[in-house]
Amino acid sequence: MPKVTIAQNILTANDTIAEQVHALLAARGVRTINMMSSPGAGKTTLLEKTIARLRGRLVLGVIEGDVETSTDAERIEAAGAETVQINTRGACHLEAHMIRDALVQLELEHISLLVIENIGNLICPSDWRLGEDLRVTLVSTTEGDEKPAKYPHLFATSQVMVVNKLDLLPYVDYDLEKVKRQALAINPELRIFELSSRSGGGLDGWCDFLLEFASAAL
Amino acid sequence: MPKVTIAQNILTANDTIAEQVHALLAARGVRTINMMSSPGAGKTTLLEKTIARLRGRLVLGVIEGDVETSTDAERIEAAGAETVQINTRGACHLEAHMIRDALVQLELEHISLLVIENIGNLICPSDWRLGEDLRVTLVSTTEGDEKPAKYPHLFATSQVMVVNKLDLLPYVDYDLEKVKRQALAINPELRIFELSSRSGGGLDGWCDFLLEFASAAL
Repeated sequence: MPKVTIAQNILTANDTIAEQVHALLAARGVRTINMMSSPGAGKTTLLEKTIARLRGRLVLGVIEGDVETSTDAERIEAAGAETVQINTRGACHLEAHMIRDALVQLELEHISLLVIENIGNLICPSDWRLGEDLRVTLVSTTEGDEKPAKYPHLFATSQVMVVNKLDLLPYVDYDLEKVKRQALAINPELRIFELSSRSGGGLDGWCDFLLEFASAAL
Repeated sequence: MPKVTIAQNILTANDTIAEQVHALLAARGVRTINMMSSPGAGKTTLLEKTIARLRGRLVLGVIEGDVETSTDAERIEAAGAETVQINTRGACHLEAHMIRDALVQLELEHISLLVIENIGNLICPSDWRLGEDLRVTLVSTTEGDEKPAKYPHLFATSQVMVVNKLDLLPYVDYDLEKVKRQALAINPELRIFELSSRSGGGLDGWCDFLLEFASAAL
């Protein structure tokens, strides 16, 4: 099956670069998160609110992945974090070589926590390691309560699930307990945060977790 | 650039099968829609409501694409339409050969309108023709108002855009006019429907359009 072999080789090459990226970041004392979700689940807004809440306590750097446009990077810059935009021009995930190239544009000596906002997609990003220490998958209460069951690989390879848009729960048909049950059946180690970037509810617990994560020994 | 050449060959092979699928469906008098969106924008719920509203007036058949699970096919069956489930086991789009294989499981002589619900994804499906007459892209008011600008290829290759979850507009930061402006700048021919599957608002116009589309000369 030559097609499978080629794909595996590409993934192996990606993993090698991901290890180099991880080693480089670890040497600089930077901890790294790969953040993934559907389009519109709220990754950028959560980052904006997180940067604002942690101002003076934790310096974040952000690598923004988008197919097109630099609007998300502009939002993150405006929120006060150093940002590099990657446009994949059609590709549905980030790859480790893109991160390696983006790192030279960041002043890593000032950054404690690097967040990579991946392309909005529940499928493609899950196979591609980027050199991260932690994988965070966002779901939101407006996108249906069967996402872990439908996209198990992403939840199986993440360490954290954030359920966002909790403020909209009264207006949608979303069984939060079912989602958590599904996710934990796939990955019993998954740490779960429930929050609303818009109302601010649950952000304290999330920010405390990031502070602890960023300061933990590498 | 061998990588590009291979990709083009695969797409050309897909287009050939898509033309065969289209010819087969046209010969049976079946019109076909390829429906695409982010995960959780509401494709399945819109289909459920559409099937219920058009009962006795239009017979729909549905091909359900999902990475895993058959929950969506079960919902569509329960709503009263003949359904075939395709599980792609990781792939982020449907391909024409999958549709060709699924068609043998449908009683096409009873069906006037075939809806293919593609994998929830704003990137991968846009390059893959499935033999459809019409491409419908759904967006929803809870997923942010920059989707056309961020994923232009999908909107450029669709004929219809449905804006769903209009009932949630009062609770979210979503500039509907901006979304329509963005989409029409990419594709001035795009026909736009605004509706809420949950409240039922706007469904009449959408269903009238489908009736007209299904009865138009092939």
